Amino acid sequence: MSKVLIIGAGGVGTVVAHKVAASPVFTEIMLASRTKSKADDIAAAVGGGRIKTARVDADSVEELTALMRAFRPDIVINVALPYQDLTIMDACLECGVNYLDTANYEPKEEAHFEYSWQWAYQDRFREAGLTAILGCGFDPGVTSIFTAYAAKHHFDEIHYLDIVDCNAGNHGMAFATNFNPEINIREVTQPGKYWENGKWVETAPHEIHKPLTYPEIGERESYLIYHEELESLVKHYPSIRRARFWMTFGQEYLTHLRVIQNIGMARIDPIVYNGVEIVPIQFLKAVLPDPKSLGEHYTGMTSIGCRIQGVKDGRERTYYIYNNCDHEKAFRETGTQAVSFTTGVPAALGAEMFARGLWKKPGVFNVEEFDPDPFMAEIGERGLPWVELFDVNLEL
Amino acid sequence: MSKVLIIGAGGVGTVVAHKVAASPVFTEIMLASRTKSKADDIAAAVGGGRIKTARVDADSVEELTALMRAFRPDIVINVALPYQDLTIMDACLECGVNYLDTANYEPKEEAHFEYSWQWAYQDRFREAGLTAILGCGFDPGVTSIFTAYAAKHHFDEIHYLDIVDCNAGNHGMAFATNFNPEINIREVTQPGKYWENGKWVETAPHEIHKPLTYPEIGERESYLIYHEELESLVKHYPSIRRARFWMTFGQEYLTHLRVIQNIGMARIDPIVYNGVEIVPIQFLKAVLPDPKSLGEHYTGMTSIGCRIQGVKDGRERTYYIYNNCDHEKAFRETGTQAVSFTTGVPAALGAEMFARGLWKKPGVFNVEEFDPDPFMAEIGERGLPWVELFDVNLEL
Repeated sequence: MSKVLIIGAGGVGTVVAHKVAASPVFTEIMLASRTKSKADDIAAAVGGGRIKTARVDADSVEELTALMRAFRPDIVINVALPYQDLTIMDACLECGVNYLDTANYEPKEEAHFEYSWQWAYQDRFREAGLTAILGCGFDPGVTSIFTAYAAKHHFDEIHYLDIVDCNAGNHGMAFATNFNPEINIREVTQPGKYWENGKWVETAPHEIHKPLTYPEIGERESYLIYHEELESLVKHYPSIRRARFWMTFGQEYLTHLRVIQNIGMARIDPIVYNGVEIVPIQFLKAVLPDPKSLGEHYTGMTSIGCRIQGVKDGRERTYYIYNNCDHEKAFRETGTQAVSFTTGVPAALGAEMFARGLWKKPGVFNVEEFDPDPFMAEIGERGLPWVELFDVNLEL
Repeated sequence: MSKVLIIGAGGVGTVVAHKVAASPVFTEIMLASRTKSKADDIAAAVGGGRIKTARVDADSVEELTALMRAFRPDIVINVALPYQDLTIMDACLECGVNYLDTANYEPKEEAHFEYSWQWAYQDRFREAGLTAILGCGFDPGVTSIFTAYAAKHHFDEIHYLDIVDCNAGNHGMAFATNFNPEINIREVTQPGKYWENGKWVETAPHEIHKPLTYPEIGERESYLIYHEELESLVKHYPSIRRARFWMTFGQEYLTHLRVIQNIGMARIDPIVYNGVEIVPIQFLKAVLPDPKSLGEHYTGMTSIGCRIQGVKDGRERTYYIYNNCDHEKAFRETGTQAVSFTTGVPAALGAEMFARGLWKKPGVFNVEEFDPDPFMAEIGERGLPWVELFDVNLEL
């Protein structure tokens, strides 16, 4: 018996809406977006009159609190833009609403990924008796829960953690990003960074790469990039000696990214065009294909998992846990491709974990700080089954 | 004793202003631009109080006629945008002013290069007793005059004409265009086209390419593209069996162009961004480096010429006439690189040919329709010396 407010009507919001609507735990659902017609389209696609819609500018605490006061949700699922995490958290505090998101806050003016801004809300959420669940998509999210599950059941100490993210899908377009191009390009063009021996090591963007073999897919060139779950995981698992994140990119994708940077279209500072300030990467977003439009012709699958080395009962062991997700199957179910699907399904289940009282504690928490077992028991039937391999060659 | 109005204060306008100011033929000079401060900067750089400036929107016949009526020029040198050729010609007709440009009219809405629109002014200019000189830059311009000179002195019949345009300069930037990016990208991304056996043959963009050897430079991969002087040259020299235009591009330049097209930033139709119509390629122009800014660090040279095969006194002969222009030298003289320099110097000399009565006949003419000899006699000392080679291997 829980009321949920979903903010954001992109590809991930579409999946969250479908999944939340299918769960009897949520008695009332509202989907809000800057463009109400987008929310209306999703509500119509889900059908059954399950979803109310509203217009909200998630940059505005005032508009957010007005909406929350009117609808009185128990929890907000924030799948808007990462810039908007703090305004939504502020509104939640003001209205006594619990909070869940899938990506950490970053300031609009600089590509800068870290949890500090959101962790700073710890006391306020705890004192208000509210739960804030950070990073409950796939990565961060399921990868963090995979790690928590490994730590709980298979390791006394985790020493080496490599999160591996492969998209072997093909959308048939010369260039498109799988999620919001602005966020995607900011993320993958930043310098690489990994954790080793108690400190962060920086690399040039895409400096470190090697071919890795993904189950049911094969070998794909994989690039070390920084990804936000590394920050919370090395904090919560101090036995970790080295933590890295790898993502596959095709040569053409990288060429396009390099050119986009060279020509200045990745800039996140505004230029003045005909007297109006326009941020080039935001204009580029408007020109590129809408990631939601990719689903229809997307084939192939994603494979995301954790490759872990550590010690159990005094013995070294290796462990690989992963999910493979098929783009076409995801599209048939929700009308979106696997990249949105793998992010939206965990967000919906995380909110349900909260609503069922399983993940409920006052304060601000990354997902690995909750018990992974109930989540792991159900995420498979929600559409993201996982596979464990023991004592395999991790290639790392 | 002639008054000249220069319209356009980009790189070419800068060169034209310098050269016109250096000529005693022009007693009064006005430089007009949409942004008056650009014209003021150029006037200050030229110095000596030689150049008046004005603001004009060259899209507006009304503003153009008002300016022409106030200043009463004998001739306009149009180095604004190709879209603006017709409004400027209209204003010239209305005010009884002669006309010269360096690039043929193209409609803003479609990349479409042909002389039909401007040739349609033939009767009106003739009846008004006014001269319109079309395409008096380097290519079109000097290449057309080279061809006319070859036809006059070295051939009874020209059979094969290959115009070869190499820019072997290095501006040290990842990507930049040598002139207005909008015009440049429109030009080089269109399908290729050449004349053979009485008809036009279309190719895919950059489909045909081969290495050609340029004097003092060496071998450079050269791509068959369509270039507007082909249209008038095959009309005026009907003995031509095949006419082609080749331009060198580096692999990186082509990669950047390909990506710019793939991501939609070469589009010339507007998209709606935050409620405002914006043409992607025009926005890209605002983000890319200003071509005028390239000059300072530009090294190396351009080499542009005509490779001709035909018959003289019953004998087959080959002929190669070209100019090499050094970027650094051009910059020292006028503060712009060689691509602007090679376009602006012929425009200024062409206007002087008119003012001295050497190229004066009522109607609309391409430059090859005038006597090439006085122009060829002076263009070398103006900064563009030329070299003739006979009976060489044309590689074609």
